Amino acid sequence: MIKRYAAPRITEIWSLERKFKLWEMVELAVVQGRESLGKIRTGIHSAIARTLSEHDIDIAFIDEREKVLQHDLNAFLEERQRFLPPELQAEFHRKMTSYDTEEAPFAKRLMQSCDLVQSDAAELLEAIKDQAIRYRYTPMNARTHGQEAEMQSFGKRCLTWYVDLRTARNALMETMGQLCFSKLSGAIGTNSGIEPELEEASLKILGFKPWPGATQIMPRILYAPIAGALSDLVLVIDKIATDIRLGSRSGRPLWHEPFGRQQKGSSAMPHKKNNVLGEKIEGMAVMACQYSAGIKQNIKTWEERAIAQSSVERVFWPDLFHVTLHAIKTMNKIMDGLVVYPDTMMLEIIESRGCYASNEAKESLLELGTPFGLTREEAYRIVQLACFNAFEPKKSMKILRKSPSGSLESADMTLDYFRLEMHDASDILSSIKDIIPDARLRVSDQLEADQATVDAWNSKLKSIFNPRFPEQWAGWNLIFKPSHILANEAHQFKQVFGG
Amino acid sequence: MIKRYAAPRITEIWSLERKFKLWEMVELAVVQGRESLGKIRTGIHSAIARTLSEHDIDIAFIDEREKVLQHDLNAFLEERQRFLPPELQAEFHRKMTSYDTEEAPFAKRLMQSCDLVQSDAAELLEAIKDQAIRYRYTPMNARTHGQEAEMQSFGKRCLTWYVDLRTARNALMETMGQLCFSKLSGAIGTNSGIEPELEEASLKILGFKPWPGATQIMPRILYAPIAGALSDLVLVIDKIATDIRLGSRSGRPLWHEPFGRQQKGSSAMPHKKNNVLGEKIEGMAVMACQYSAGIKQNIKTWEERAIAQSSVERVFWPDLFHVTLHAIKTMNKIMDGLVVYPDTMMLEIIESRGCYASNEAKESLLELGTPFGLTREEAYRIVQLACFNAFEPKKSMKILRKSPSGSLESADMTLDYFRLEMHDASDILSSIKDIIPDARLRVSDQLEADQATVDAWNSKLKSIFNPRFPEQWAGWNLIFKPSHILANEAHQFKQVFGG
Amino acid sequence: MIKRYAAPRITEIWSLERKFKLWEMVELAVVQGRESLGKIRTGIHSAIARTLSEHDIDIAFIDEREKVLQHDLNAFLEERQRFLPPELQAEFHRKMTSYDTEEAPFAKRLMQSCDLVQSDAAELLEAIKDQAIRYRYTPMNARTHGQEAEMQSFGKRCLTWYVDLRTARNALMETMGQLCFSKLSGAIGTNSGIEPELEEASLKILGFKPWPGATQIMPRILYAPIAGALSDLVLVIDKIATDIRLGSRSGRPLWHEPFGRQQKGSSAMPHKKNNVLGEKIEGMAVMACQYSAGIKQNIKTWEERAIAQSSVERVFWPDLFHVTLHAIKTMNKIMDGLVVYPDTMMLEIIESRGCYASNEAKESLLELGTPFGLTREEAYRIVQLACFNAFEPKKSMKILRKSPSGSLESADMTLDYFRLEMHDASDILSSIKDIIPDARLRVSDQLEADQATVDAWNSKLKSIFNPRFPEQWAGWNLIFKPSHILANEAHQFKQVFGG
Amino acid sequence: MIKRYAAPRITEIWSLERKFKLWEMVELAVVQGRESLGKIRTGIHSAIARTLSEHDIDIAFIDEREKVLQHDLNAFLEERQRFLPPELQAEFHRKMTSYDTEEAPFAKRLMQSCDLVQSDAAELLEAIKDQAIRYRYTPMNARTHGQEAEMQSFGKRCLTWYVDLRTARNALMETMGQLCFSKLSGAIGTNSGIEPELEEASLKILGFKPWPGATQIMPRILYAPIAGALSDLVLVIDKIATDIRLGSRSGRPLWHEPFGRQQKGSSAMPHKKNNVLGEKIEGMAVMACQYSAGIKQNIKTWEERAIAQSSVERVFWPDLFHVTLHAIKTMNKIMDGLVVYPDTMMLEIIESRGCYASNEAKESLLELGTPFGLTREEAYRIVQLACFNAFEPKKSMKILRKSPSGSLESADMTLDYFRLEMHDASDILSSIKDIIPDARLRVSDQLEADQATVDAWNSKLKSIFNPRFPEQWAGWNLIFKPSHILANEAHQFKQVFGG
Repeated sequence: MIKRYAAPRITEIWSLERKFKLWEMVELAVVQGRESLGKIRTGIHSAIARTLSEHDIDIAFIDEREKVLQHDLNAFLEERQRFLPPELQAEFHRKMTSYDTEEAPFAKRLMQSCDLVQSDAAELLEAIKDQAIRYRYTPMNARTHGQEAEMQSFGKRCLTWYVDLRTARNALMETMGQLCFSKLSGAIGTNSGIEPELEEASLKILGFKPWPGATQIMPRILYAPIAGALSDLVLVIDKIATDIRLGSRSGRPLWHEPFGRQQKGSSAMPHKKNNVLGEKIEGMAVMACQYSAGIKQNIKTWEERAIAQSSVERVFWPDLFHVTLHAIKTMNKIMDGLVVYPDTMMLEIIESRGCYASNEAKESLLELGTPFGLTREEAYRIVQLACFNAFEPKKSMKILRKSPSGSLESADMTLDYFRLEMHDASDILSSIKDIIPDARLRVSDQLEADQATVDAWNSKLKSIFNPRFPEQWAGWNLIFKPSHILANEAHQFKQVFGG
Repeated sequence: MIKRYAAPRITEIWSLERKFKLWEMVELAVVQGRESLGKIRTGIHSAIARTLSEHDIDIAFIDEREKVLQHDLNAFLEERQRFLPPELQAEFHRKMTSYDTEEAPFAKRLMQSCDLVQSDAAELLEAIKDQAIRYRYTPMNARTHGQEAEMQSFGKRCLTWYVDLRTARNALMETMGQLCFSKLSGAIGTNSGIEPELEEASLKILGFKPWPGATQIMPRILYAPIAGALSDLVLVIDKIATDIRLGSRSGRPLWHEPFGRQQKGSSAMPHKKNNVLGEKIEGMAVMACQYSAGIKQNIKTWEERAIAQSSVERVFWPDLFHVTLHAIKTMNKIMDGLVVYPDTMMLEIIESRGCYASNEAKESLLELGTPFGLTREEAYRIVQLACFNAFEPKKSMKILRKSPSGSLESADMTLDYFRLEMHDASDILSSIKDIIPDARLRVSDQLEADQATVDAWNSKLKSIFNPRFPEQWAGWNLIFKPSHILANEAHQFKQVFGG
Repeated sequence: MIKRYAAPRITEIWSLERKFKLWEMVELAVVQGRESLGKIRTGIHSAIARTLSEHDIDIAFIDEREKVLQHDLNAFLEERQRFLPPELQAEFHRKMTSYDTEEAPFAKRLMQSCDLVQSDAAELLEAIKDQAIRYRYTPMNARTHGQEAEMQSFGKRCLTWYVDLRTARNALMETMGQLCFSKLSGAIGTNSGIEPELEEASLKILGFKPWPGATQIMPRILYAPIAGALSDLVLVIDKIATDIRLGSRSGRPLWHEPFGRQQKGSSAMPHKKNNVLGEKIEGMAVMACQYSAGIKQNIKTWEERAIAQSSVERVFWPDLFHVTLHAIKTMNKIMDGLVVYPDTMMLEIIESRGCYASNEAKESLLELGTPFGLTREEAYRIVQLACFNAFEPKKSMKILRKSPSGSLESADMTLDYFRLEMHDASDILSSIKDIIPDARLRVSDQLEADQATVDAWNSKLKSIFNPRFPEQWAGWNLIFKPSHILANEAHQFKQVFGG
Repeated sequence: MIKRYAAPRITEIWSLERKFKLWEMVELAVVQGRESLGKIRTGIHSAIARTLSEHDIDIAFIDEREKVLQHDLNAFLEERQRFLPPELQAEFHRKMTSYDTEEAPFAKRLMQSCDLVQSDAAELLEAIKDQAIRYRYTPMNARTHGQEAEMQSFGKRCLTWYVDLRTARNALMETMGQLCFSKLSGAIGTNSGIEPELEEASLKILGFKPWPGATQIMPRILYAPIAGALSDLVLVIDKIATDIRLGSRSGRPLWHEPFGRQQKGSSAMPHKKNNVLGEKIEGMAVMACQYSAGIKQNIKTWEERAIAQSSVERVFWPDLFHVTLHAIKTMNKIMDGLVVYPDTMMLEIIESRGCYASNEAKESLLELGTPFGLTREEAYRIVQLACFNAFEPKKSMKILRKSPSGSLESADMTLDYFRLEMHDASDILSSIKDIIPDARLRVSDQLEADQATVDAWNSKLKSIFNPRFPEQWAGWNLIFKPSHILANEAHQFKQVFGG
C-alpha cells in the first residue's frame, strides 16, 4: 500500500521481519513439542533457541538464496540452519513442510490485524455514540429517496449509524473465531511425519488447536468470511460517509466536515470547503470490496494445494487491512470534528411546510374524518394535494419553467430580477398544518383531482375542522411538534445505549 | 430476468425458438457450402432445406431427448434428422462438432442485442441533446465535491452527459467489430473435417469470416470487451442518474423526475415525490457490473474448451442486455419527462453570494492588485475570507450550534423561534461582489488570519478599489454576470453539436 | 433464473403469490397486535381476516394498478382494501409504511431459502462422508501444484472435502442468526406511528424481534454476510468439482463422473465421456460470486433509504439461491454416481517410482546418515537426485526432445516407432526405494551436483546401507508401504467422523 | 505493490518525482501557450522555466505543506512559487484548477505504462510464435473437458495461444486511442478562465488535444476500457498458464516449467518440481480483475467531480500495471524455458487407442457404410462402443473397483500385486483402428446396446470391411495418421504467421 493510506501498525505486522520471526517460533515450538513428548532428548530445544537468538535473521541473505532456490521458506531454513551444528540441524524443520511453518504465523498476523480493526472500530463507535447523545433532541428532516420524509432527531440518525457499525463489527468478531486453528500435519496433511499428539502439543505452545481437515495448507474457507466482514464494515462506514456528504451539500448544509484554519479547498476557487474525507472513504470502500472479492477466490485451490493464492494473500490481505483502518481513521476524524448546524436543520424543517408530519396528518385526518365518511384513500389524496399546494411555485417561477432564457443576456436579466424578488416580504411560507383545517385545497396541475373533487374535499374538511367544535380537533396542531413526533425515540435510545 | 426488468426484444433474441432456428441455418449453410464447392451433388441442400421447413422445430421433443443424451445439440440433431431419409441424414452435421453449429448463432444473437442497445442509446443521446439545447442559457451552479463551484449552464451539464454517453456508445461499437468472425473448423479447430475453403464458403453464407485461432470454440477474449463496454455504458447512465438524484433533493430541487398524476410516492407519507427511477438505475448498474465481471471470467477455459462458461453465458449475457436496455429506457423516461426548475437554479446562484465567481474574483483581484504588491497567495486568502464572511451565520444560529436543544420541549420552542426569525427582513444576503470592493473583510474564527492581517488586507483593498478611479476596476461587476462567465461555453457547444 | 438452472422450491418462495400472501400476514399481525394491546376493539382483526380470506389476492389487478401508482405496495393495498368496509379500511396498513409490510416477509423468504440450502448441503455432506468411509483404505498420490506428492488415502481426500463443506455450511448457519429481527417502526423507523410495544407484539406474532436501529428499512448489513456465506459455500463445492475434474482427466483417470448409458459426450467424437457436471459447477460459482458481490453493495443506501437495492434484491437473491441449490444438486449427482478407479490410483502410485515417500525417505536417510556425518542439506540433495534419476528418460525420448519432428511424415514415422517401443519389456520401472540403498546415483543434467559429488554421495550411501549390517537399515522398505504412510489418518477420521 | 511483484519501470512512472515533474511541465505549457498567443509578454515563459529548473522539486517540503493545506496540488504550487518573484507568480497556475494541472500527466503516465505492457506483450508473442513454429509437426492429443479429443499439433495449440494474446493486445491498443485527449478548461470545464484557443495551444505543446465534454476532470469513461483491456490480457495469459499447468501434471507430463539446477520444489519432498510460475499467474489474474473492476467504478462521480476516485487511481492503476507486467514477465520466463516432451505426447496418443480419430472414424465409417444401410446414429453408436471396448479394464481392475481395500494391510498387498501385474507382457493395447474393421465389438456394461444389437453391428462391419475387397476401405488406416489429421493446419499457420 502506498504510504498515503498505509497504517504503520499493519505494515509492521506484515513485514518480512515479523514473518520470519514468527516462522522461527513455529520451528522452535515443534522442537519443544518433541522434547516435551520425550521424542528427543532434553536440552535440544534450548540449545537451538539459544543459538538462533544470538543471530538476527538476515533478510538480505534470505533474499539472495531465494533467487537460487526459488523457494522462500527453504531460503529461510538455510539462513537459520547455517548457525546450527549438524545434530541440531537434523532436528530443525524435521519432517515438516513449508506450510507447517507458515500457517500459524499467517493466522497470527490475521488475528493481530483484526484486533487493530476491532479496537479502532470500538473507538469510532464511541465517537458516534457521543454525537447521538449530544444531538438527542435536535430535530431534522429524515430523508428517503433524497426527499425530506418525517422528522427525526439527528441523534436518531447517529443511533442507526451506531447500530449498523456495531453489527458489522460483531460480525467481524464472529468470523475471527476460526483463527484459533492451525496445522502441523505435514506435507499433505496426513500427519505422516508429525504425529497427531506432536501436532497438538506444538500448536498449543503457539496458542492454536489442530484443524482436522487440513491438506498441505489450511483451507481458505476459514478466512474468506473475515475478508467479507472487513469489506462489509468498510461499506457501513461508506454508508455513513455518504450520508454525511449528502447532508453537507452547500446551499443548505446540515453539517460540515472539519476544515483546517489554513486549509485550501481548491487551487482555483477560494470559497471551497470540500468534503473530501467522506469522498476518500468511498475510495476505500471500492478497494476493500475488490480486495475481499479477490481473497474469496482463494477458497478454490487445486487438490492438496496450489500456490495461486499466495500472491493474492501477500498483497490483498495487508492492503485490505490498510484501507479498512484508513477508512475507520478517516471517519473518526470526520466524527470528531464534525461541525453540526442544528439551525439549518430547523430551517429545513420550516421550509418543508409541514410535510415532515404528512403521515401523522393523514392518519389524524382519517381518524377525525371517519365519522364524516372519509375513506383512507381520500385522506391520502387530500393530504397529498395539500402538500402539493404548499409548494405551489410563484408566478415568475412558473414562467421561467415554461420558457427558459434564450440568450446569455436574458440570463443576466433574469438573475437580477430574481435577486430582487427574493426579498419580497409577502413570501410567507404556507404549511399543510394550516391549509388542511382552513380547507384551502386548490386544484393542482400535477395531480388528478378536478375542481369538483377538490370542492367536495374542502367542504368535508370544513365539517371536520368545524371551528365551532374546536375541542374535536384540538390535537391537530400537536402532531407538528417535535415533542410529539419524536416521543418514541426514547425507547430506541434506551434499547441501544441503555439507561 | 424477471418480467419487471425484462426487455421483450431481448427475450425473443435469446429464446430457444430463435436459437434452434439459427442452429438449423448453420447446418444448412454447411450443406450449401459443400454443394457450392462441388463436394456433394447439387440438390441436396434444397432437399434438406425443403424437408425441414415443412416441420417446425419441436422444442418439447428436444427437451425430452436432452434428458437422456445430456447434450442439447445432439438432442436438436435427433429432432431434425428424424425427418430426413438416411442419405440426407449423412450430410446433416457431417464432420461438424456442436460448437461449429453454435458459435455463429451465438455471435449473431450478441450482434442483434448490441444493435438494440445501440439504437436505444442513440435515442437517449437525442433526448439529452434536446435538453442541452433547451437549457443552453440557463445558469446553475456547478458542483464539485457536492459543493457549489463556478456557474455553468444546465445545457453544459447536459452536454457533458451527452459526451460521456456518446463515448461509451462508441466504445461499444468498436468492440462489436469482433462479431463478424466465427468458426466451422471442427471438433478442436484444426479443420480436419471441414476444410478451410468449406469453412469460408459456409460462413460467408451466414455473414461471417473465419477466425484463425479457434479451438473447439471461439476464444472468449473476443466477447469480453463487449460485456465491459455494456457495463461501462450503464455506469455512465448511472452517473447521469446520480447527478439527477442529487439535483432533485427536496429543499431546493433543481429538477424533478416525472411524477404521474395518480402516482403515489409512499404508502405512509402522501407528500413524497420520490426519484425512484434514478435509484432503480443504480440497481441496474450494480447488476450490469456483476454480469460483465462474470462474463470476463469465461476468457479462461481449459485447453481446447471446457463448458464452465456455458451456464454463465446462458444466464449473464441476456441478463446483461436486459438490465442495459432497462437502464437506457428508464433514463429515457427521466430525460423525456424531466421537470426542470430554472428558477431554483437562479435562487441557488443568488444564495451562493457571489462565490460562484470566486475563481474569477481571485484572478481579477490579483490582476488589479499586482501593481499594489498583492501576491497570488494574498489574493487567494482575501477572496477566501470574503467568502467565509459572506456566509457568517446569524447570532441565533451560532448559539444553537454551541448548545443544541437539551429536551424535546426545548426543541419545540426553538422551532417556533426560528419560524418567526426566518422572515426577519433585515436578512439581506451579502455577497463577495460587494464585500471585496467595499473592503469589509472581517476576522473569521474558521480561518487563520488575525485582526492585523485583515486590517492590512482591507487597506490594500481600499487602494485597489479606489472610488476616485472607478475606471480602473470597472470590470469587477462584470465577472459576476452569466454572460461573462458562460461566454466560452459557446465553443464547446459548437464542438459537440456542430453548427 | 432460466428454467435449466432454476430450483422450483426457490421459484415458489420468491413468487409474487407468496410475497403478497406474506404481506397480508404482516398487515393482519399489526391489526391483531393492536387488538391484543387493547388499542382497537376486539373483533376487528377477525373481521378483516375473514373478509380477506374470502377473496384470493388478484395479481393481475395489482399489476394494473401498479402501472398507474408506480408503487407496488400501494397497488397491493388497493387490491386488499377494496373488499373492506371503510371502518375496517381505516385499520388496514394504519400508520404503516411500505417497508413495515415488506421487511418481515423478505427476511422470512431468506430464511426459508437458506433452510433449503442447509438441508441440501446436509445431504451432500452425507454423500461425501459415505465416500470417505468407503475409500478409507484406498491409497492414491496426493497432489500439490498438480504434481504427485505424498501418498494419502482417497478417503482422506474426501474427508477434507467434507470438512471444507461443513465449515462453509456452519458459517452460513451463523449468518442466519440475523434473520430473527425485523421492524414495524414506521416511515423512517422512529416508531412515531407504531409505538414500540405494538411493534414488539406484532412482530412476535410473525416470529420476529424488533431491530433497534432500523430506518425506513432494515439495514442491509444484516443480510450481506448471508450472501457471502452462500457464495463461499458454492466456491467450496467448486473446489471439490475442480479436484474431481482434475482427477478424471483421461489418460490415467482416477474416477469418472456418472455417464448415462444412452448419453452422448460430443456430437463429433463418439468416444467422449466429458466431465460436464463439474464444469457446470464452475459456472455456478462464477455466478454465485457475482450475485453475492452485488448484494453486498446494498449495504450502502442513502440516508433513511433509497430504492437502488430493490431491483438487485428482486433479481440477485433468488438467483443466488437458484445457483447455490443447483451447484449442490449437481455435486450430489456427481458424488452419488462417481465411478472410482482404485486400480489406476495404484498404477499411479507405482509409476511415481517411490517419490510418494520422498519426504519419509529423506528424513529416514538423515536419521540413518547422521552417524556418518550426513547433513540435512545432503540428505535432501541425495533424495532429490535419486528421484530425478528414477525418471531419467530413455534415449529415444531424449532424441525427440532435442529435435522434434520436422514434417508431418516424420511425425507419422515417430508415432509408429514409439508404438513398437512402448512394449519393450526391458522397461522395468526403477524406484528410489532401490536406487538409494543400492547407491546407484547418477549425475543428472537437471541438477547441479557433479560427478565427484555424486561419487562421494554413493560411497556414503554404501556405508549407510551396508549389506553386512542390514538390521541397521531394516526399516527402509517399510516407509514405502501404505500401512506405514497412512497410519496416522486414523486419528483424523476419528476426529471428524467420530467413533 | 510489494517489491516481489513490482516492476521498477512502473514504480518510476508512478513515482512522486515523475508526477511533480509532469505537473510542472503542464504549468509551463500554459504559460508558453499564453505567450505564443500574445496574451502575455514574451520572455515570461523562459524566465519561469529557467528559475524553476534551477531548483529541484523538494518532495519533503510538499509533504509538510500538504499536511496543513490538505491539498497536494496547492502544496506543490507553494513549493514552486516560492522561487518566483511576484510578477511571475501571477502567471503561474493562473486561472487554472488542480485537475487542469493533473489530467495530462495522468494520461501521460497511463500511456507510458500501456506502452510498456504492449512492448512486453510483443516480446511474449514472439516467444509463443517461436514455440508454434518449433512444434509445428509435433502431434499431441487436444483436450476438451479435460478429456483427450482429436489429435492436433502442439504448434497449433501455441498458435491459438498466440492469436488469443494478439487479440487481447490489439484490444488494448485500441483503448489507448483515448489517451490523446486532455483538458485545460478550468475549474468546472467551462473554459471560463482558460479560453478554448489557449487550451488547444497549451495542450498541443504537451502532445494532447482538448476533450470537449470535460468537467473539472476528464470523464473516467475514457480510461475504464483500458483497465478492462489490461485485465482481459492477464486473463488470456492465465488461460495459457492454466493449459501449461494442466499439461505438466506429473504422471504423464507433456512439458515442464523451467526448473533451476539448484532449485528446491518443496521443503519436505525433494522430488517436487512444482509449476509454481503458472500458479503465480493465476494470482496475478485474480488481482488484475479486481483492480480493473475497481477502476471501472470511477466512471460514476458526483456532478462535476468528487474525489472518491482519487485514492483508487493512486493505488489500483499502478498496481494493475505491476501485476500485468509481472504476469507477462512470468509467462515469458515459462515460454522461454519450457521443457517440452514430444515423446510423452506420442505415448499419450498411443494410449488413447485410436480415439484421437474417433470423429474421422465415425464419418469414414458412415461413408463406407451408407451403401450398406448404415445410419448416422448407428455409425455414432458403433464407434462409441468400439472406444469403450478399447478401454475395457482388466479383470483385476474390475475387482478392485467393486471392492476397494478394507484395511491398510490389504492396501499393502494390492500395491504389491499391481506392481507385478503391470509388467505383464500380454497387455498389448487394443485400438479402434483394429476393433472396427475386425468386427470385434463387445457388449459394454456402460452402454445401452445389447448382445443382439452388437451382433448385428458386427455383421454389418464384416460386410463393410470385407477382406475380399480391401480396395473399398483402403483409406481406413490413413485416417489415424498425423499427416492425414493435421493436414489442414497448414492453412491456419499461413493465415496467422504468413508465408
